[in-house]
Amino acid sequence: MCQLLGMNCNTPTDIVFSFTGFSTRGGLTDEHKDGWGIAFFEGSGVRLFVDHQPAVSSPVADLIKSYPIKSKNVIAHIRKATQGEVMLENCHPFVRECWGRYWVFAHNGDLKNFAPALNGSFLPVGTTDSEQAFCYLLQQMRSRFGEVMPGMSELADFMREITAEIAAFGTFNMMLSNGEALFAHCSTKLHYIIRQYPFPVANLSDEQMTVDFSQVTTPNDKVAVIVTEPLTDNETWTQFAPGQMTVFVDGDVVQFASAGGAA
Amino acid sequence: MCQLLGMNCNTPTDIVFSFTGFSTRGGLTDEHKDGWGIAFFEGSGVRLFVDHQPAVSSPVADLIKSYPIKSKNVIAHIRKATQGEVMLENCHPFVRECWGRYWVFAHNGDLKNFAPALNGSFLPVGTTDSEQAFCYLLQQMRSRFGEVMPGMSELADFMREITAEIAAFGTFNMMLSNGEALFAHCSTKLHYIIRQYPFPVANLSDEQMTVDFSQVTTPNDKVAVIVTEPLTDNETWTQFAPGQMTVFVDGDVVQFASAGGAA
Repeated sequence: MCQLLGMNCNTPTDIVFSFTGFSTRGGLTDEHKDGWGIAFFEGSGVRLFVDHQPAVSSPVADLIKSYPIKSKNVIAHIRKATQGEVMLENCHPFVRECWGRYWVFAHNGDLKNFAPALNGSFLPVGTTDSEQAFCYLLQQMRSRFGEVMPGMSELADFMREITAEIAAFGTFNMMLSNGEALFAHCSTKLHYIIRQYPFPVANLSDEQMTVDFSQVTTPNDKVAVIVTEPLTDNETWTQFAPGQMTVFVDGDVVQFASAGGAA
Repeated sequence: MCQLLGMNCNTPTDIVFSFTGFSTRGGLTDEHKDGWGIAFFEGSGVRLFVDHQPAVSSPVADLIKSYPIKSKNVIAHIRKATQGEVMLENCHPFVRECWGRYWVFAHNGDLKNFAPALNGSFLPVGTTDSEQAFCYLLQQMRSRFGEVMPGMSELADFMREITAEIAAFGTFNMMLSNGEALFAHCSTKLHYIIRQYPFPVANLSDEQMTVDFSQVTTPNDKVAVIVTEPLTDNETWTQFAPGQMTVFVDGDVVQFASAGGAA
């Protein structure tokens, strides 16, 4: 199994604090040592850093920890290989373009006998079940909506359907972002927290590190952090229910009227 | 205008020496200060580093210079913005997937009134003529050959045609790699060198730096370096002719029998 970390904010925010605790699990406080990766949206662009070295000893991870890249949407992943060899092409997150935007995806879990029919519009480069699932999801999304990206509510309905369909093949904890929204699906384990005014002092559980968020934020900032296991030991994290698919936009959970519901 | 650097080898080779000289042109010995990028193939995977800061002052460029990533195919670019703002999504190289492989592309030059009909299979995320050209090239390649990547000779014929077609709209010095071959097209300025046994001592023109390649290579190594302006002042570089499209595989120029020719 692997671990996932996501961040969705209303203002570009650096993820150094959370990434520091998270990357410690990549070989030091936990066994996820078969590579790691992190993708930052910056405007419409994406910076993707992937490495098949353990996150704790990777010079690229050191760069991330010392060089605060500010982003409104970040997805990170540390890998414990289950399917697919330890090779660069198997490191998450994966990136593809659809509708003239980048889509970033990372997955934790294991899919069994998952061999979706891929028509060639999006094909995996590596050998993981995860990249297969990502390509299938994009293919279905593209063929469902055609030439133009639909509104967020339709997109959320689609994500709810497709994640449930894929999750039927095994464990499908996943995060997906198009730079605007972050979609998170939980099969077994995922937590989130919304940090906003008044900002707390937070204390990492994996490292001796504390940050007073009130010193580095403005009262209008809103930051959602989504992660496999809570990163801090003095805040209250919300646990996802199995099968839950939640959409984060501008640092908050988006609530949609239920399909067909009106009052 | 921008500058391009490519490397194609028969054995994974680090590009620190060439990139050091090249990145100096990103704001110090030359004016290409509107961002830069470099993509390394590693197996089927790609590491892409892009930055809209000048290459001379970018912490990410420092990482590349101090952390030798070995690769058989590398494409790098330093940018002097002509079309498209200085934003991350406009930094070359661009990456897309086709036929389950990554394709990496960088362009130097300016295309005028270039507005190809794009069917949506590959769409630009940023606002450059370069990314448009890349998407158009991939779309045409995909629709010409269908589901399966053709052999190198057919692919080279296609590249010769499509680069000539695009170059009719302006200046199209470009490099494209699928991790196996590096295709280079020259409109105005491009040079290459094949380094092989006996390896020389090379002397950078842009920085005080010398390397004795015989100390860091084996007699079987073959390394093609392709660049806008020669990087060393004590070696003989071959200049591309305008309109020339050359394919590099395993560190050497690939010669194809002319179409229809047989003996």
